[in-house]
Amino acid sequence: MSKKYVYFFAKGKAEGSAKMKHILGGKGANLAEMTSLGIPVPPGFTISAEVCDYYYKHSNTYPEGLKEEVEKNLKELEEVSGKKFGDPSNPLLVSVRSGAAVSMPGMMDTILNLGLTDETVSGLAKLTGNERFAYDAYRRFIQMFGDVALGIEHAKFEKEIEAIKEKRGIKLDTEMDVDDLKELVERYKALYKREGKEFPQDPMKQLWIAIDAVFGSWMNKRAVDYRRLNKIPEGSLLGTAVSVVSMVFGNMGDSSGTGVGFTRDPSTGEKRRYGEFLRNAQGEDVVAGIRTPESLEGLKKVSEEAYNELFNIFDVLEKHYRDMQDVEFTVENGKLYMLQTRSAKRTARAAVKVAVDMVNEGLITKEEAVMRVTPDHVDQLLHPMFILEEKKHAIEENRLIAKGLPASPGAATGKVVFSAKIAEERGKDEPIVLVRPETSPEDLAGMVAAQGILTARGGRTSHAAVVARGMGKCAVVGCEAIDVDEEKGQFKVGDLIVKEGDWLSIDGSTGEVFLGNIKAIKPEGIEGDLATLLNWADEIRKLGIRTNADTPHDARTARKFGAEGIGLCRTEHMFFDNDRIPAVREMIASETTEQREKALAKLLPMQKEDFKSIFREMKDLPVTIRLIDPPLHEFLPQEEEAQRQLAKDLGISFERVQEIVSSLHEFNPMLGHRGCRLTITYPEIAVMQTKAIILAAIELKKEENVEVIVEIMVPLVGLVSELKYVKNIITKTADELIKKSGVDIKYLVGTMIEVPRAAVTADQIATEADFFSFGTNDLTQMTFGFSRDDSGKFLNDYLEKGILSVDPFKTLDKEGVGSLVRTAKEKGRSTNPHLELGICGEHGGDPDSIRTVDEIGLDYVSCSPYRVPIARLAAAQSTIQLKQGK
Amino acid sequence: MSKKYVYFFAKGKAEGSAKMKHILGGKGANLAEMTSLGIPVPPGFTISAEVCDYYYKHSNTYPEGLKEEVEKNLKELEEVSGKKFGDPSNPLLVSVRSGAAVSMPGMMDTILNLGLTDETVSGLAKLTGNERFAYDAYRRFIQMFGDVALGIEHAKFEKEIEAIKEKRGIKLDTEMDVDDLKELVERYKALYKREGKEFPQDPMKQLWIAIDAVFGSWMNKRAVDYRRLNKIPEGSLLGTAVSVVSMVFGNMGDSSGTGVGFTRDPSTGEKRRYGEFLRNAQGEDVVAGIRTPESLEGLKKVSEEAYNELFNIFDVLEKHYRDMQDVEFTVENGKLYMLQTRSAKRTARAAVKVAVDMVNEGLITKEEAVMRVTPDHVDQLLHPMFILEEKKHAIEENRLIAKGLPASPGAATGKVVFSAKIAEERGKDEPIVLVRPETSPEDLAGMVAAQGILTARGGRTSHAAVVARGMGKCAVVGCEAIDVDEEKGQFKVGDLIVKEGDWLSIDGSTGEVFLGNIKAIKPEGIEGDLATLLNWADEIRKLGIRTNADTPHDARTARKFGAEGIGLCRTEHMFFDNDRIPAVREMIASETTEQREKALAKLLPMQKEDFKSIFREMKDLPVTIRLIDPPLHEFLPQEEEAQRQLAKDLGISFERVQEIVSSLHEFNPMLGHRGCRLTITYPEIAVMQTKAIILAAIELKKEENVEVIVEIMVPLVGLVSELKYVKNIITKTADELIKKSGVDIKYLVGTMIEVPRAAVTADQIATEADFFSFGTNDLTQMTFGFSRDDSGKFLNDYLEKGILSVDPFKTLDKEGVGSLVRTAKEKGRSTNPHLELGICGEHGGDPDSIRTVDEIGLDYVSCSPYRVPIARLAAAQSTIQLKQGK
Repeated sequence: MSKKYVYFFAKGKAEGSAKMKHILGGKGANLAEMTSLGIPVPPGFTISAEVCDYYYKHSNTYPEGLKEEVEKNLKELEEVSGKKFGDPSNPLLVSVRSGAAVSMPGMMDTILNLGLTDETVSGLAKLTGNERFAYDAYRRFIQMFGDVALGIEHAKFEKEIEAIKEKRGIKLDTEMDVDDLKELVERYKALYKREGKEFPQDPMKQLWIAIDAVFGSWMNKRAVDYRRLNKIPEGSLLGTAVSVVSMVFGNMGDSSGTGVGFTRDPSTGEKRRYGEFLRNAQGEDVVAGIRTPESLEGLKKVSEEAYNELFNIFDVLEKHYRDMQDVEFTVENGKLYMLQTRSAKRTARAAVKVAVDMVNEGLITKEEAVMRVTPDHVDQLLHPMFILEEKKHAIEENRLIAKGLPASPGAATGKVVFSAKIAEERGKDEPIVLVRPETSPEDLAGMVAAQGILTARGGRTSHAAVVARGMGKCAVVGCEAIDVDEEKGQFKVGDLIVKEGDWLSIDGSTGEVFLGNIKAIKPEGIEGDLATLLNWADEIRKLGIRTNADTPHDARTARKFGAEGIGLCRTEHMFFDNDRIPAVREMIASETTEQREKALAKLLPMQKEDFKSIFREMKDLPVTIRLIDPPLHEFLPQEEEAQRQLAKDLGISFERVQEIVSSLHEFNPMLGHRGCRLTITYPEIAVMQTKAIILAAIELKKEENVEVIVEIMVPLVGLVSELKYVKNIITKTADELIKKSGVDIKYLVGTMIEVPRAAVTADQIATEADFFSFGTNDLTQMTFGFSRDDSGKFLNDYLEKGILSVDPFKTLDKEGVGSLVRTAKEKGRSTNPHLELGICGEHGGDPDSIRTVDEIGLDYVSCSPYRVPIARLAAAQSTIQLKQGK
Repeated sequence: MSKKYVYFFAKGKAEGSAKMKHILGGKGANLAEMTSLGIPVPPGFTISAEVCDYYYKHSNTYPEGLKEEVEKNLKELEEVSGKKFGDPSNPLLVSVRSGAAVSMPGMMDTILNLGLTDETVSGLAKLTGNERFAYDAYRRFIQMFGDVALGIEHAKFEKEIEAIKEKRGIKLDTEMDVDDLKELVERYKALYKREGKEFPQDPMKQLWIAIDAVFGSWMNKRAVDYRRLNKIPEGSLLGTAVSVVSMVFGNMGDSSGTGVGFTRDPSTGEKRRYGEFLRNAQGEDVVAGIRTPESLEGLKKVSEEAYNELFNIFDVLEKHYRDMQDVEFTVENGKLYMLQTRSAKRTARAAVKVAVDMVNEGLITKEEAVMRVTPDHVDQLLHPMFILEEKKHAIEENRLIAKGLPASPGAATGKVVFSAKIAEERGKDEPIVLVRPETSPEDLAGMVAAQGILTARGGRTSHAAVVARGMGKCAVVGCEAIDVDEEKGQFKVGDLIVKEGDWLSIDGSTGEVFLGNIKAIKPEGIEGDLATLLNWADEIRKLGIRTNADTPHDARTARKFGAEGIGLCRTEHMFFDNDRIPAVREMIASETTEQREKALAKLLPMQKEDFKSIFREMKDLPVTIRLIDPPLHEFLPQEEEAQRQLAKDLGISFERVQEIVSSLHEFNPMLGHRGCRLTITYPEIAVMQTKAIILAAIELKKEENVEVIVEIMVPLVGLVSELKYVKNIITKTADELIKKSGVDIKYLVGTMIEVPRAAVTADQIATEADFFSFGTNDLTQMTFGFSRDDSGKFLNDYLEKGILSVDPFKTLDKEGVGSLVRTAKEKGRSTNPHLELGICGEHGGDPDSIRTVDEIGLDYVSCSPYRVPIARLAAAQSTIQLKQGK
């Protein structure tokens, strides 16, 4: 028996079902499903996407028997409809629609009224008693067929209409009378000839040309681009299906009409029916926007019966599909037909509300609710977002001037400033956007004061990006199109010059940069339904969620957002404060261990207080503290003036300061004297930091009875001997203090796994470590050999040329970096079965990466505070998917 | 039965043998072996090193039964010698010596004359009829025992001698008479008291204290340091053995004497007996150098019989040990005793000659000959070396002013210059040493002109190091102690200032930097015995040996040295020549693909000629050509003046040049826009290079019938999609040219594996690659996260603190980087069984790394021309060791 390629549906019976989306496409599958549910759907059939697959695998030919199968189905269609294809007295007209398993703009969409010819058009006129309607349908079909199936430019058809309207002195298409329409049909036919095409007068020919066109459109540029942009890998879908459905007409007069409907409000999620209806119109008229549609109440005026039936169908569909539906329908002479149903697109707010409501209504499970809300939805609810209409408006006005990397989500509008100092001053009084070539730790206060940050250089894990995400502040980085001239107080984009004080709006979720002001919606925070949903996620997920926080403020925010501990507390950020940096610099300028210890002694009480205030926020939870990591040169001023000041402050010569700066210069600081390498050269730094950590814990316990689980983390370990060396310093220092205090303080010592060698030799390293925390930023840098600060120069090329499908700094590279993480886990656990495993790179807040990490089997992820709610949801979704074997 | 701990030897019979070095130490094992051979050895016994092992594992106690076993052996010793321990009438005296399996200065060495007491000394006097001899022996023993076994400072004993000599108005020790010696004994005893020690009058007590002292010395600081410095891992040896041997005396009068001998000339390797003899003396007198020893002919004068017997023994030992021996002997009243034999230390020249001669004599196999010569020996024969005496002299004169990294072996002496330009001028007329903070490609001509290169910064794989090794030129790099001031034309080391024109000598094999001139020996090259030996190595080894060569000159040198192809031809080095760099810069400054192609078109004929001349040298052999690798900024001038000139040359503004330079600036160029990333952004570069390679091969084949096996290598691949992209460009370009030419040219396309991700995903990458070449420099950088240019700042700390035992840029890190190489090999071969595998990093010329690579099972190593002979030997040694399961 040959394979079945065509699936029929009519009158309550269908060969297909909603489960067959893969071969019938979303549209075809749901038409079949609705038919089986007894919902009125015009009869028709769907040609399987397997044909599309065959078509491309066999040099654009069809499988044997397809032709016969289509003809057989057409015959059946004629039988159930009582009409005949090409029959002038009672012609069968059909729509031909494409439809893949995933909704995909970019392919050929729809041809309506197929089957009309010079002969059948008059039959239609007679049948309907409406000649104008028939000729209007005909000319629309010729136009659509020429444009969509044969590639004759749309504008050329419009020109013919214009010519007639001009001749007749009328303005609207609807003002054209039958004769005009007949003339138009002739003009269109002449246009076909001029274009070297022929309008087929044989409906079967029309049908096959249309089917060819649908399959052909699967690989057209727009469709291929769309799949690339939406990360739908070629080969993951079979192709498009083709649905051939008998026509129903909403434009047959005042007892006809067409509309779209939502079973709930797609904007708020409230349980109220929502939709639009246009009397005496076809679907395309709704889209064209010539007339303003009414609400669904309009349908009631046409037919109360149809109105009640529609709402009945809403209930049936929701119960059946167990999700909010978005439907298209047509009423032909008072009779309701459903033309499409699908899961409704919805706003973030609606997604959350619908999911929670449906659980409460007993319609779906908590797991299903968790799967219905996307991480992006949560993200949107936590950050200000530009009002969509306002943004569209700005784009129409050509105010979209550049696009950078979307580094930290949200929307910001403010006046441009170019220095952190000015940002700090002005930011108190008015909204500002800080624009910098790149940011450095010195810009911190300015970043705090700004609404948003825009940089010309740097990637998703550059300083600006990391810090902004930590603050939950909108940032666009690596916007290479802008050329910042700080001295002149301006930046250029092409020929456009934007000056200090000009208004600028940036969208950190898309990377868009706009001139002028755009209105935004304030974030909702975690309350009500979102809180409920995330609590469900917490019940489901296996991964722990910690946060990356360096300040009590961040710690508090993260805890409020549901963090279960701190997975990464970067101690060096504490060194940049104005009251500390002098001592840090004094330490760096030291020539002897004694001098260094003296300077460190000044830092000790301050660092201890830092830890106390963080520990207090994190009461009873684990806090992972990373010892100093960045190369020392980052703490020194780079400009001459500041260096002269430093010389004065330290009482040394300017030349000596220059000497220190130059001696600390490195060709590749990322691979230089940093991380545990610093502590090995200067053990006294680890001694001071350990003292500060342990003393903080002791004092808090004694004074306030606050307990935390302290985890001391040694960064950049590649050799077990490095960890052993630093661990000895830590345990010696800590154990002495603890013994002296008489208080029982427990602490762990572990390491970041961020150097490939650490992953490869994890069995050795685990013998000295209580925990591993994967620093996937650096691990990605070194595994790929991509500097995160420089990769902007070529990563775009890579994404555009399809060499990479995603930015590995955003989504963890499962095959390369992920494979090293897995190796490290397996080797590490082989020598230390109790090893605690987490990830603290920027990937910790990325849903796809969370899935990868969950699959590998780590214990927790740690991410910036504003990613915590997202991570909670993503982790639960990962658990559900893994349980389902997906 | 309890374990055996003590091994007896006497009169032709021994319980031990030479094979038991592991437990008897070198000395004890060879004494036993010689005894069994019937060679006259004073009787004695050896306490096993297993006792030492036990001693440290059981808090400094001895195994049960040891005491009894020692006493039993002592009794036997008394029996065979007919003397008795502590017997005043015929006292047994013994020497107590330490000895581990590996010769190890730093431990306690020897105590002579043990068994002398106030009572036995007079017995000895009577027996020998020589009271002065007896008391001299006694006072020497007390002194040695106090110093070595009880830790009383040597100088305090010397002070007592001085006091007596002063009192008596004499100068030499030998002028002391019996009374003086008796007084000295009393003074020594008083010294013991003052030090709170007791000189034991019981010989058994003396013996056990001496044994304790030997075992105790195994873990003293000097011994531990020695093992660390010589890379003898703790735990690899059991410890030291203790040999107790009856005393014989070379100082019993004119028919006695002592000497050392070599069975061949240790300096030239010639087959002539060589040694020194001192009449009427003990071994320590030879060392003390008070009298000048005679040649071995001196022994003939003492006893012709002993003389003949000694030479007989030489023959027996050589035949038995099948190696040149170094012996110690004593003649006591005309009777010869052998006290030690061991493999003789020898010069590089001698090592090669002895090995080859012994094969010709039928004494050893070719495999054994190959194992007898070290890679260092070969290295020494290929480079000028400072004459050892002259260097010692320079050190005594405090002319050793600094130490850097030994980057390229050899010795150089010349006048200091600080710029490559001046080096180029002056280098024609006089020897010069180029001193730079670091070198860059712009310094190339200056480096060629210099005798040697000294840099203040950079590691073993820095530009200076790599280029110098390629030229076989002496270089010391990363000499952080020197502070170069190019403008002032001087460098500082501490307070010392060295000015342009001052003489400097540098040793590239040790990293030493000397003020002034030191004489050196010229290299011998590969001729005669060395050529024979290396041909044997070639017969044995499994690894292929290729070379890293970028010029016809290097290719010729390497081929002369035995290279079997080029494993790495770096094309970018060809871009720096004065006739090319303008076109390269023009290409970089291009704003459109067309401009870029125009500039590349200028490079094409030059690059083609480069390849032709290299291919010609490498006729019939494979040549692996790497496409452009370094970031483009390396080709641009960094100084303003040169940038202004460039602007003029290119006809663009100076600002534009600055803009280009700044746009190419990278924070971490090592991880930046380089390697295949460049070719992906600018495919036209790969097109030009492929054209040049393939056209060169076509023309050579057509014009000269010269064939080569072209292997085109894509650098820095981390993703199979990268390789696929660039490979498409290469094959498309190449196949078109080949087809057009009508000539049959075969070429391979492969990749460097130097990014950790490439190793981890090698199964994917191998599907697109004909070969892998491991770029272990970069692979080491990224696997460790160590920048080779910056690691100087901490690598020394790491080596000193024992965190690393070797510099991973010198010797391939077997556990980390090696493990990735193994993974890549296994994964690569799993999808492409014919994959060719080689290594082209600097490790290719390092013997330990060659061993690692051979063990992993790669096909070849590639190294700089001057390392080729070393690699040939090391590869053969590796094969032999692997066959032996070592």
